[in-house]
Amino acid sequence: MKIFPYPMLTPPPFRWHRDEAIAEPKVHEWIRPLHLDGSSPFENKGIDIAILGAPLSRSSISASAASETPDAFRRAWRSFTPYNLEEDVDLTPLRVADLGDVRQHVTDIAQCHTHIRNAMTALRHHLPQTLPITIGGDHSITAMLIKGWKEAHPTEQVGLLQLDTHYDLRPLEEFGAANGTPVRNLIESGTLKGSNVWNIGLHGYFNSRSLKHYADQVGVNGITLKETRKKGIAATIRHALSHLDKEVDTIYLTLDMDVLDLSNGPGTPAGMPGGLRTDELLEAMLIAGAHPKVKAMDIVCLDPRKDIGSITVFTAVNAMLNFMVGVIKRGEA
Amino acid sequence: MKIFPYPMLTPPPFRWHRDEAIAEPKVHEWIRPLHLDGSSPFENKGIDIAILGAPLSRSSISASAASETPDAFRRAWRSFTPYNLEEDVDLTPLRVADLGDVRQHVTDIAQCHTHIRNAMTALRHHLPQTLPITIGGDHSITAMLIKGWKEAHPTEQVGLLQLDTHYDLRPLEEFGAANGTPVRNLIESGTLKGSNVWNIGLHGYFNSRSLKHYADQVGVNGITLKETRKKGIAATIRHALSHLDKEVDTIYLTLDMDVLDLSNGPGTPAGMPGGLRTDELLEAMLIAGAHPKVKAMDIVCLDPRKDIGSITVFTAVNAMLNFMVGVIKRGEA
Amino acid sequence: MKIFPYPMLTPPPFRWHRDEAIAEPKVHEWIRPLHLDGSSPFENKGIDIAILGAPLSRSSISASAASETPDAFRRAWRSFTPYNLEEDVDLTPLRVADLGDVRQHVTDIAQCHTHIRNAMTALRHHLPQTLPITIGGDHSITAMLIKGWKEAHPTEQVGLLQLDTHYDLRPLEEFGAANGTPVRNLIESGTLKGSNVWNIGLHGYFNSRSLKHYADQVGVNGITLKETRKKGIAATIRHALSHLDKEVDTIYLTLDMDVLDLSNGPGTPAGMPGGLRTDELLEAMLIAGAHPKVKAMDIVCLDPRKDIGSITVFTAVNAMLNFMVGVIKRGEA
Amino acid sequence: MKIFPYPMLTPPPFRWHRDEAIAEPKVHEWIRPLHLDGSSPFENKGIDIAILGAPLSRSSISASAASETPDAFRRAWRSFTPYNLEEDVDLTPLRVADLGDVRQHVTDIAQCHTHIRNAMTALRHHLPQTLPITIGGDHSITAMLIKGWKEAHPTEQVGLLQLDTHYDLRPLEEFGAANGTPVRNLIESGTLKGSNVWNIGLHGYFNSRSLKHYADQVGVNGITLKETRKKGIAATIRHALSHLDKEVDTIYLTLDMDVLDLSNGPGTPAGMPGGLRTDELLEAMLIAGAHPKVKAMDIVCLDPRKDIGSITVFTAVNAMLNFMVGVIKRGEA
Amino acid sequence: MKIFPYPMLTPPPFRWHRDEAIAEPKVHEWIRPLHLDGSSPFENKGIDIAILGAPLSRSSISASAASETPDAFRRAWRSFTPYNLEEDVDLTPLRVADLGDVRQHVTDIAQCHTHIRNAMTALRHHLPQTLPITIGGDHSITAMLIKGWKEAHPTEQVGLLQLDTHYDLRPLEEFGAANGTPVRNLIESGTLKGSNVWNIGLHGYFNSRSLKHYADQVGVNGITLKETRKKGIAATIRHALSHLDKEVDTIYLTLDMDVLDLSNGPGTPAGMPGGLRTDELLEAMLIAGAHPKVKAMDIVCLDPRKDIGSITVFTAVNAMLNFMVGVIKRGEA
Amino acid sequence: MKIFPYPMLTPPPFRWHRDEAIAEPKVHEWIRPLHLDGSSPFENKGIDIAILGAPLSRSSISASAASETPDAFRRAWRSFTPYNLEEDVDLTPLRVADLGDVRQHVTDIAQCHTHIRNAMTALRHHLPQTLPITIGGDHSITAMLIKGWKEAHPTEQVGLLQLDTHYDLRPLEEFGAANGTPVRNLIESGTLKGSNVWNIGLHGYFNSRSLKHYADQVGVNGITLKETRKKGIAATIRHALSHLDKEVDTIYLTLDMDVLDLSNGPGTPAGMPGGLRTDELLEAMLIAGAHPKVKAMDIVCLDPRKDIGSITVFTAVNAMLNFMVGVIKRGEA
Ligand SMILES: [Ca+2]
Ligand SMILES: [Ca+2]
Ligand SMILES: [Ca+2]
Ligand SMILES: [Ca+2]
Ligand SMILES: [Ca+2]
Ligand SMILES: [Ca+2]
Ligand SMILES: [Ca+2]
Ligand SMILES: [Ca+2]
Ligand SMILES: [Ca+2]
Ligand SMILES: [Ca+2]
Ligand SMILES: [Ca+2]
Ligand SMILES: [Ca+2]
Repeated sequence: MKIFPYPMLTPPPFRWHRDEAIAEPKVHEWIRPLHLDGSSPFENKGIDIAILGAPLSRSSISASAASETPDAFRRAWRSFTPYNLEEDVDLTPLRVADLGDVRQHVTDIAQCHTHIRNAMTALRHHLPQTLPITIGGDHSITAMLIKGWKEAHPTEQVGLLQLDTHYDLRPLEEFGAANGTPVRNLIESGTLKGSNVWNIGLHGYFNSRSLKHYADQVGVNGITLKETRKKGIAATIRHALSHLDKEVDTIYLTLDMDVLDLSNGPGTPAGMPGGLRTDELLEAMLIAGAHPKVKAMDIVCLDPRKDIGSITVFTAVNAMLNFMVGVIKRGEA
Repeated sequence: MKIFPYPMLTPPPFRWHRDEAIAEPKVHEWIRPLHLDGSSPFENKGIDIAILGAPLSRSSISASAASETPDAFRRAWRSFTPYNLEEDVDLTPLRVADLGDVRQHVTDIAQCHTHIRNAMTALRHHLPQTLPITIGGDHSITAMLIKGWKEAHPTEQVGLLQLDTHYDLRPLEEFGAANGTPVRNLIESGTLKGSNVWNIGLHGYFNSRSLKHYADQVGVNGITLKETRKKGIAATIRHALSHLDKEVDTIYLTLDMDVLDLSNGPGTPAGMPGGLRTDELLEAMLIAGAHPKVKAMDIVCLDPRKDIGSITVFTAVNAMLNFMVGVIKRGEA
Repeated sequence: MKIFPYPMLTPPPFRWHRDEAIAEPKVHEWIRPLHLDGSSPFENKGIDIAILGAPLSRSSISASAASETPDAFRRAWRSFTPYNLEEDVDLTPLRVADLGDVRQHVTDIAQCHTHIRNAMTALRHHLPQTLPITIGGDHSITAMLIKGWKEAHPTEQVGLLQLDTHYDLRPLEEFGAANGTPVRNLIESGTLKGSNVWNIGLHGYFNSRSLKHYADQVGVNGITLKETRKKGIAATIRHALSHLDKEVDTIYLTLDMDVLDLSNGPGTPAGMPGGLRTDELLEAMLIAGAHPKVKAMDIVCLDPRKDIGSITVFTAVNAMLNFMVGVIKRGEA
Repeated sequence: MKIFPYPMLTPPPFRWHRDEAIAEPKVHEWIRPLHLDGSSPFENKGIDIAILGAPLSRSSISASAASETPDAFRRAWRSFTPYNLEEDVDLTPLRVADLGDVRQHVTDIAQCHTHIRNAMTALRHHLPQTLPITIGGDHSITAMLIKGWKEAHPTEQVGLLQLDTHYDLRPLEEFGAANGTPVRNLIESGTLKGSNVWNIGLHGYFNSRSLKHYADQVGVNGITLKETRKKGIAATIRHALSHLDKEVDTIYLTLDMDVLDLSNGPGTPAGMPGGLRTDELLEAMLIAGAHPKVKAMDIVCLDPRKDIGSITVFTAVNAMLNFMVGVIKRGEA
Repeated sequence: MKIFPYPMLTPPPFRWHRDEAIAEPKVHEWIRPLHLDGSSPFENKGIDIAILGAPLSRSSISASAASETPDAFRRAWRSFTPYNLEEDVDLTPLRVADLGDVRQHVTDIAQCHTHIRNAMTALRHHLPQTLPITIGGDHSITAMLIKGWKEAHPTEQVGLLQLDTHYDLRPLEEFGAANGTPVRNLIESGTLKGSNVWNIGLHGYFNSRSLKHYADQVGVNGITLKETRKKGIAATIRHALSHLDKEVDTIYLTLDMDVLDLSNGPGTPAGMPGGLRTDELLEAMLIAGAHPKVKAMDIVCLDPRKDIGSITVFTAVNAMLNFMVGVIKRGEA
Repeated sequence: MKIFPYPMLTPPPFRWHRDEAIAEPKVHEWIRPLHLDGSSPFENKGIDIAILGAPLSRSSISASAASETPDAFRRAWRSFTPYNLEEDVDLTPLRVADLGDVRQHVTDIAQCHTHIRNAMTALRHHLPQTLPITIGGDHSITAMLIKGWKEAHPTEQVGLLQLDTHYDLRPLEEFGAANGTPVRNLIESGTLKGSNVWNIGLHGYFNSRSLKHYADQVGVNGITLKETRKKGIAATIRHALSHLDKEVDTIYLTLDMDVLDLSNGPGTPAGMPGGLRTDELLEAMLIAGAHPKVKAMDIVCLDPRKDIGSITVFTAVNAMLNFMVGVIKRGEA
């Protein structure tokens, strides 16, 4: 019998060959899959960061192949080194493990969600020192991941730093746990306070007026892109982090790739013109990664089949690596 | 309050403008949406053929945008006239109505399936003289549609004429009501006898050996493409129809677009080389449409986003029209 | 006999279904087609803004499918709400009607142009309180639309605010009323004074030197993108508007989508690198829309077939909506 | 002053470099542009075949970039040798000249048509021994080319061998000289008798019933694809040629690329499933080329921008070369 | 230190996860990579078939990404089961190992070729019972592979069964060991007799006349597609095999994917219209695989970047599997 | 015998037709191919700028069709006028000749490199007043071109201004003269001092840490994009030029198109998110072109087959023209 970490996980579908003789690995050689018996790939040392695939997109309002993103990520790693030249930061001291994917069901979405939630709870119990990065899947997973976190840490206050074009506050009665409802789900279930949600990058004509009213009512801090650019992305992110820092124990970072301008992120189900630029996103990730209370993150709503020239997949990987550069810098501060 | 036919239907999302002055309509002008009060668009005359969208593809094993096919169909109608030159058949005497789409839920697949099933039952009760053509969605809908039919006609024997690359006999315990299981679903639920299933076009390396064994056990008539071509597509279809004619009251025709060779049908989640040619498919549809016991049909597993140059969408519309030419010819025989 | 508004118009080819029960319509449900008898869709109230398709692109110098843009617009509306979150402006108080398309002829371009011109004149006579927005088609239509306006308002001085990579001042003797000549057409016909033309966004290597000389001679105000960026797009647009405000009664705004940088607007026949950014365009539209003398506008030279990931179509719709946000703000000032 | 052949022609926009030292030219080196003074490129020897571009597609009913086909042809020549291995025929003994393109106007379609017509008349007068092959452009050019021929040979009976999905018999009153009307144009103008038109490849749902009635009335010989395949393409073409041989002095061959099945010819404005296969087309061209009365041909309605993987452009070039192999074989018979 | 089989091989860049509990593997789980110490993955049992990547395409005349084909193959395996339904043949009794790729150099093409040649020689020495299937790469590798074979079996007569649009007989002086010269290379080096080369599928305008002369001179058996279709592909392949059977000890099968018609194989650097159909290719592979003297094969000149909808990659995998079905059937004969 | 300039050059494969009567040429008519006898196209006047194709990309680490860029350039010229509106600079006073391409070998990369090197040396000897612009090809050519320059000017100090995402300092022992090694090649061969290399635009995760160490050791001035944006692109380029001005006689400018952000330059083998914007690149080129010591330049690593909407090709041509505008401005300073 196979004893891969937790019953709700499956190993990564493929493993990169890793030539032990190579002095400088590329990202796909540096990030290592868990051993099949569930033990750490780092000679039984701890894992700093765990990457978890959540290949679920049948809960997406519009058709989406975001379920293919975890594998698209794994393939794209090959195009990156774990060394950031601009920051002169080497990521290889971080022990990063690929835990594989949360087991999914073809037709039982509720079961998929339960697995995702339980995976996070189990992760927190088994690997409490490890920062989890989940690769979606659609945005419905974020509600599950934070609920799973909360189950493991019931006394914690959790805050949400969200980069998104949308509020994700649509009514649960109508949609269920879909990609349009995770934040409402978290607020209505009492998992988060609305006032501990900071959503940055909202823009354009992609939220109805009633959602804005609901957001205001429950105290969600929605910072539009227009406001963001007035003070700059760096100051805006720092502002949100400093507020959250005062209110919560754990900040969960969620990056909905559709926050990008359509020319910078064509590979999302709902990307639109007028969004964030790539350089703004990359700077945001560096800053968020450096904050010590940011203890988990996810990247969602990236549809690799809609992508053009792999730009969205590469940008998402770059964003994740920038987050890790931030993590490394925590020690320096 | 709007009283559109049955509570589980929504009107077509858009209606083509129809200039009453035009002598020769195109297909999009000839096929008419139901009035919003649910009455016949044909001056209260009966409806010969009803077209129903079943925009469900979250039950697809691999990611699929087959949910977008009903609208892709409606748009593609504009490129066709209702006159088949090769057969010299004018379709306009047929009264064909577009009933709109079965109402879907974003995260409750079981509810979607119930709606689809109920829609068919309701259709049979309210429009018993009408031949329903359902545009999927993925192949999971076929199990629901036939169950719905059977509920309306509990004493009928129903047979299945399936054009497919796959058996669709995967185990229900593992997948639920997905696009890989409809035929097993129908057999295990006692809706159909295995021996009343004729599946034509099976080929290549896309079914496991155990499925073939199961098919043989339950008596499914799987005619591979190699066998089909030995006697020709026309003779093969006629052979299946004549067997079914002896055994059943109603033959349900289901066309999985992935039966086409990948070069002829690039727009399906699972299309592969070595499949049926377009001319073979079109001929099959003419023959099947002409058989008086073929009382319902569907077209499934067409993903318009994967399509190239609209070839698969246009081919599917052409196939549906050829089926109708067959229907018109029934009277002639 | 059908009496749709003016003989030179045809109704929109399709109408979106509009569920009266929905509290918050999306843009495709909010913008309403005229009734088929030509009466207002707003319970006989007036129309604030009229949208008119001018599906003509056979007058384009290079091959163009800009004729397909009006329908591409109508389909894209479905992806937008009529609420701008960044400006916190709800557009639904505006009564916006879709008048359909100007009737075109397949081979008689002059007749197409006459229809477009007459449509504008008729619009001004029948709906004098209505601001017309015309969706091209290629840029040749602008000359017709302004001539039509001038015919209805012969004593008005009309000015042109143009966003374009090109002067559109090529010689009429050589090209006729093509998409390279509308501004020259307007100047040489005495419809506009050259000094009342402000063209913003000119850049690169896409105008010949002689056109620049001609522009200078006739006093066209050509503001290159380099100059624009020195003072910023907002200040540049305001500068042009304030000059025009002093000189003319009506400012006509024309947006040639090729003004966008090719990465932000791939779907135009002549888009090139080095052009305007999306955020600059969107800001310009907000400002122009807010000026009370801007009484008509058009969007031209968008080829949906060349578009990539729908970015140009979505950007153009966004630009139009931003213009309307400006219109709403007029009241506030 | 330049005296390129006829005032209505412009030289090819580019000329391939031709290394005189190369023993075996490729097609782009073998076909030679006329000298700029209008003299033969073959040391003042005669020209066997003249290739003429007619880059007009603004007369196309739907948007089309068929105007780019002459240049797409010239570029594609580079991928072919002038030696057909299957027939063991070397084309290089044929003297083939590229005359360049008929001069076009941007907005005056009638003038474009007059130029095309006059170009053919002039060609017949100046180069009476030369077989002209015209590369469209849309199908409207065929009416002009045959009228031009007839003007040069007023006493000749001319017949038409047409490969097309469509009759091209739409009413002139409605469309003018568009790509849907050339055959009607020729019949109504008395240029051709309907009974001397053989149209092979008609199929599917792409002609209205009234066109079929008109075709029957005027005696057009419309051979559907279904009928064609009953006797085979070779026999069908031979049958048509032998009928025409008895009735006319000159057979004009026109190839509308949309006769191809969409999978074999994606690059046309109106291609559809259920059409001719590539091998059938290539065989037809060999046979038609070999008939001594086939004295002119054209290839139309190829839109290189819609093409996928250049398949339609390459197939059209291949078809033209097969026609030339037929021409060479005339001598042998 | 790692001792992967031969110094000129590198392990496959990635390995599929293989769940030992799965009863019916898919092709990617059934084909197994060699252990990293070079031992058999089949519990030290022998290997029936070895798959070897030769990712070299810098020796291609036109730019080609055929170097990416071995990995594209490995990824595509996931879409196939090892059970052929039409033949009712289960491939899993065959022990098939993936040996990885021949080590390549970025700028020293001669060294790449030497490695490929040596890999084959070493394979024959170490695994004499194993049938090697090499996945190119461009066609230059075939010359190296056969030379490597000959070095291991210097007394054998080797024959070549080639499926190709081209002779591959271009002069070595001009091109060196490129993808246009392998057959000439083999003949001129005395590795093969020209009369033991059977090239099937030659067609169109893609070989110069002088190559045909050279082919005839050296006795190469070039069977054009026209001749092939006269007797059928099955009979043609059998005819070639029966001739070769009399003359040689070993028949090497090489499949140049450009032999396919462009609509069936868009993903090759030189594919053209008028080529082999998919069903013909698949039938040919079944027959060739069944002949006991066919002891090695390769598949070359597939450029996955040019591919459309993965059709060429999937067809090539299907072709390889059909070959293996033939191999299994050898035992039956 | 033909005496085209130097034996290692071939004429451009095609020449644009150039109508002498046209007053204002477009770029393709203004840039003129050398006469076939090697004499100047400018009535025996000197050539200011020579454009040379170096269609070599088989030395690229990853598969690349950069070999097709010289022809893609020549075709793209047609979309540009030689007049820059923003700078009000007319380029036509510059005499710019297209020398054609350096002769390449299919399988002997070293020979290709030797030809490229010799072509530069010869150019310097025969046309010492001419500024050469070489269109690659991959970046390996830069090492050859500078070595060729140095051979002609052995006593000169040469500096390198490089715009690149990469250091191009990989070890020669491993890769040979590939596109990852040219700068190391130049430094290790003593052609350049490391301290005379200024590389601007380095960013992200695309250089290993050891390359950064090597760069620092040999004194290469690597300015990351982060640093560049702190002072602005103009100041950064001026800073580099002013340093180089003090140290060297000749500054060679090399533009690797992958320095662009992937959304602005999708057509390169290694483009990535987080790179330079188009407007930054265009500004840099204006400034570099204006410096009198910049005496040669190249543009490399543009793969037209990967390009999307021609954006990268058009941007590269625009960059080259901006460089020429700078050249014209030299006189003004
Ligand atoms: Ca979201
Ligand atoms: Ca979102
Ligand atoms: Ca199925
Ligand atoms: Ca199927
Ligand atoms: Ca314009
Ligand atoms: Ca413009
Ligand atoms: Ca036609
Ligand atoms: Ca046609
Ligand atoms: Ca070959
Ligand atoms: Ca070949
Ligand atoms: Ca470089
Ligand atoms: Ca680079």
